[in-house]
Amino acid sequence: MDSMKKLEQQFKKLSSYQHLAAICGWDQAAMMPSGGNDVRAQAMSDLALLCHETLTAEEMGEWINDAETNIASLSDTDKINLREMKRVWEQATVLPADLVESKSLLGSSCEHAWRTQRPNNDWEGFSANLKRVVDISRQEAEIRAKQTGLTPYNAMLDLYEPGMTTEKLDALFGELKTWLPALTQSVLEKQKSVNISEPKGPFDTALQSALGKRFMEVIDFDFNHGRLDVSAHPFCGGVPSDVRLTTRYDEADFTSAIMGVIHETGHARYEQGLPKAFRNSPAGEARSMGIHESQSLFFEMQLGRSPLFVEHLAKMAAEAFSRQSDAAFTVDNMNALYNRVQPGFIRVDADEVTYPAHVILRYEIERDLMEGNISVEDIPERWDRKMQEYLGLSTDGDYTNGCMQDIHWTDGSFGYFPSYTLGAMYAAQFMAAMRKTVDVDACLRSLDFAPISGWLEQNVWSKGSTLSTEELVIQATGEPLNPEYFKQHLISRYLKG
Amino acid sequence: MDSMKKLEQQFKKLSSYQHLAAICGWDQAAMMPSGGNDVRAQAMSDLALLCHETLTAEEMGEWINDAETNIASLSDTDKINLREMKRVWEQATVLPADLVESKSLLGSSCEHAWRTQRPNNDWEGFSANLKRVVDISRQEAEIRAKQTGLTPYNAMLDLYEPGMTTEKLDALFGELKTWLPALTQSVLEKQKSVNISEPKGPFDTALQSALGKRFMEVIDFDFNHGRLDVSAHPFCGGVPSDVRLTTRYDEADFTSAIMGVIHETGHARYEQGLPKAFRNSPAGEARSMGIHESQSLFFEMQLGRSPLFVEHLAKMAAEAFSRQSDAAFTVDNMNALYNRVQPGFIRVDADEVTYPAHVILRYEIERDLMEGNISVEDIPERWDRKMQEYLGLSTDGDYTNGCMQDIHWTDGSFGYFPSYTLGAMYAAQFMAAMRKTVDVDACLRSLDFAPISGWLEQNVWSKGSTLSTEELVIQATGEPLNPEYFKQHLISRYLKG
Repeated sequence: MDSMKKLEQQFKKLSSYQHLAAICGWDQAAMMPSGGNDVRAQAMSDLALLCHETLTAEEMGEWINDAETNIASLSDTDKINLREMKRVWEQATVLPADLVESKSLLGSSCEHAWRTQRPNNDWEGFSANLKRVVDISRQEAEIRAKQTGLTPYNAMLDLYEPGMTTEKLDALFGELKTWLPALTQSVLEKQKSVNISEPKGPFDTALQSALGKRFMEVIDFDFNHGRLDVSAHPFCGGVPSDVRLTTRYDEADFTSAIMGVIHETGHARYEQGLPKAFRNSPAGEARSMGIHESQSLFFEMQLGRSPLFVEHLAKMAAEAFSRQSDAAFTVDNMNALYNRVQPGFIRVDADEVTYPAHVILRYEIERDLMEGNISVEDIPERWDRKMQEYLGLSTDGDYTNGCMQDIHWTDGSFGYFPSYTLGAMYAAQFMAAMRKTVDVDACLRSLDFAPISGWLEQNVWSKGSTLSTEELVIQATGEPLNPEYFKQHLISRYLKG
Repeated sequence: MDSMKKLEQQFKKLSSYQHLAAICGWDQAAMMPSGGNDVRAQAMSDLALLCHETLTAEEMGEWINDAETNIASLSDTDKINLREMKRVWEQATVLPADLVESKSLLGSSCEHAWRTQRPNNDWEGFSANLKRVVDISRQEAEIRAKQTGLTPYNAMLDLYEPGMTTEKLDALFGELKTWLPALTQSVLEKQKSVNISEPKGPFDTALQSALGKRFMEVIDFDFNHGRLDVSAHPFCGGVPSDVRLTTRYDEADFTSAIMGVIHETGHARYEQGLPKAFRNSPAGEARSMGIHESQSLFFEMQLGRSPLFVEHLAKMAAEAFSRQSDAAFTVDNMNALYNRVQPGFIRVDADEVTYPAHVILRYEIERDLMEGNISVEDIPERWDRKMQEYLGLSTDGDYTNGCMQDIHWTDGSFGYFPSYTLGAMYAAQFMAAMRKTVDVDACLRSLDFAPISGWLEQNVWSKGSTLSTEELVIQATGEPLNPEYFKQHLISRYLKG
C-alpha cells in the first residue's frame, strides 16, 4: 500500500475516534447526569490521548515524507489533502508530550478556580493561575514560532486562522478603530428616541423549543443529520453527518434562545455542507474559526436580525405564544429589540456594533502577552484604559466584568478572539457578493432559503479546507477580506431607514 | 511497574473505550437521527477493533503469566481480579481475528435479511444464511471447546453463564418439564372465569414517561447516575456510573411500558450497585447474563407484578391518567391484567408461567445444533413438535411466529437463551432467602425499598464477578440453584388466593 493510502487510513481512524469524542462530548454537556462526570472525564481523557497518539504515530512522518517525494504521482485532490494532513500533523507533533499535558492540567485548574474567583472578583487568586497558563502558552508559542518561522503570536493565530498575522490584523482592526467609535455614537444618538417594549414572560420552554425548530426548518437545517437539545452553554457539536446543536431556554425571555438557535444553525449548516469527497480527511474540515463564525453570523446578523426576517419572526413568535395582540410582538418593536445597540461590559452580551471593540481590546492584549511585551499584571490597567477608549466604560477594580469575564484565556486559547470579528467581516463581504447573483430580499420575504444556501454551499461549505482562507474569500467575493463591507452593513442596518 | 499494575492500567484503558462504546451505542439507539448511521457504524466498528486490540495486546499474555508466577505476592483482591482478567483475555485471544470478523459480517447480513424475511415467512432464504452462521459458530465452539476442555455447547454457554453446563441445564429444565405443563393447565383453568377489562387509551406518552420515572424513584433508581429515554427496542445500557435505560411507549397501552421500565430498572440497579473498588476491572463487572436477568426479573416478577405492588400501581396509574373511576383501573382488574397467563407463539410476549417453555425449546435446539446432533434443516420440525408438546400450539409452516421470531441466532449468540429462565429461578430463590431477614410485604405496602435494595446490594450487586455464580447463590441463599423456589413462587402467585 502506498504512503498516501496509509495516511488516508490513519486519518480515517482518527476521524472515527474524533467522532466518538464529539458525540460523548455533546452527551456530557446535554444529556449526562452529573454523577457520571468523573468516569466520563477519564474516558474522554484516554480518548484525547488516543487521538494524539494516532495523529503523531511514529510512521506518520515517514509516510508524509514519502508522499511528498512522490508528489508528482498524486492527483490534485491528494495534493491538497497531503498539504492539510501535514499541517495538522506538524501542529500536533511539534509540542513535547509533557508540555501538552502540563498545559492541559494548568488550563483545567485555572478554569476550575476561575468559576468561583470570577464571582468573588478575586484577581489576585486568578492572576496567579493565569500567569502559569501564560507562561506555558508562551513556551508553546515559542516552539511553534521556531517551527513555522512566524512570530510567537502569529504562530498561535495560525492554529485558529491559518495565514492570519498581526500585521494584517493591525491593519484591519486599525481601520475599524478609525470609524467605529463615531459610528457607534451616531447609532446611539439615533436609537435614543426609540421606545422598546420587552415581551413579558413566562414563555413555555416547550413552545420556545418548537419555535426554534420551526426556524431551523425554515433555514433548511437537515434534521436527518442532526438535532437540537439543551445545554448550559449553547454550542454546535457532533459530526458533519450528525450535527448536535444546543441552546438554553429562559422562561422570561424567548428572544435570545431563538436567535441563539439561528446562530448555531449557521455553524451547523457549514458542518452539514462540508465536502463529502473529503470526509474523514483534514481537507474536508472547516477552514478556520473565522470562517466558521462567519457562517453563524451570516445566519444571525446578515439574515436573522434583518428587518425582512424579523417581520416573519415577530409573526411566528406571536402565533407560537398566542400573543397576536401584544404590543411587544409588533414588527417594529421586534426590530428595535433585535437591533438595539448598547455599550456594555460583557462581550457575549454585546450587539453587533459594539462587539468588535471587545474583540480588538482582547486581541491587543493577548498579542502583547504572547509577544512578551506585557505581563499578566499589566492586564487590568490595559483593559480599563481600552474599555474607556473604545466604549466609554471603566472597569477599574471590577475584574468580574472586566478581564475575568471570559473563559478563553484560562485554557490558553491565545489567538482565538480575532476569529469573532473576522467572522463578522467575512459574513458582510459574503452577503455583498451574494447579492450580485441572489435576490436575498426576495428569499427573505418568501422564506425560501434555497438560493442563499446554494450560494454558501457552493462558495464556502463545499470548499472545506481545500483553499486557503484568502483564496476562499477571493474566489467567493472577487477580492481579499475588505472591512468596508462590514462598515457598509452597519451603516445600512443601523443608520439608514 | 509490576505486571499486575500493567494489567490494571490496560484494563482501565479498555474500560474507558468500552465506556465510549456504551454511550455511543445508547446514542445510536435513543438519540441519533437515522442519517448519522453510516458514519457512526464505521466509528463503532473502529472502536470495537480498538477494544479487541487493547484486550489482546501482545504483552497481555506475558503480564498474565508473570502475575501468575508471582501470585503469592498478590492480595486476595488482586488474585480475584487476575482470575477474571485471564478469563476475559482467554475468551478474546483464542479466536483467530479472521473468524471474529467473518462471524460479525455473516451475523450482520443474516440479521439484516431476517428483517424482511421474517414478515415474508421466508424460511428458505433465512435458513441459507442461518446455516452459515451456525457453521462459523460451530467453528467457534470447537475452538473454545479445545481451549476449555468443555463440549462445544458448554464452551459457548460459558461465555454468558460461566460454570453452567448442559448436564446442569438438562437436570434443571428436565425437572421443570415434569411439573410446568400441568401447573400451566391448572392456572389456565383457574383464570378461565376471570373477566379482564383492558384500559382504553389514548394514554399520553409524556404522562406515561412521568409515571415510569415515579416508579423508578420509588424503587430507588439513582437519577444522578443514569436516565430514562425512548428507543425502538428497550434496553439497559451505559456504564455503572451513568446507566442509560430505555423503554417505548404505546398510546393505546401504558401497562407494558410501565412494567418494562421496572424490568430495565432491575438491570440498572445491578449496574449502579456493582463494586466501586473493582470499577474498570473485570472483577467489578456483572457476574453473568443469568444473574443480570435475575435482577430485572426480581424487580418485574417478584416485586412489580406482586399483588401488593400492583395495588400501588393501580392507584398511581389511575391518578396519573385521571381515571380514578375507570373500572379497568381497579386493583383487582390490574392484578388480573398483570398476572394473566396465556400460551402464545411469541417468547417476548409470554407471561412468567409459559416463558420457560419457550426457553427450554430453544435451549434444546441450540444445544443439539452446537453439538452437531442436528442441522439447520431440522429446526422447523423440532420447533413445531416441542411447541405442541410444551404449549399445545402448532407452528407447522408458520416460520414467522415459529423459529424465525427471535434475533439471537442470527448473530450466533448460541448459549444465551438459558439465561432468561436461569434468571427467573435465581430471582425466586433470592426472594425466598430475602424473606428470612426482610419483611418484603411490609416494604411493598409502604413502598420503602431500602431493605430490599440493601439485601440485593449486599448479596448480589456488590459481589460483581468476585464470586462464581454458584458461590454467589450459595452465599446469598444457603444452597445452590434450586428450581423448587421458582415452582413455589408460581404456585403461590397463580394458584393460591
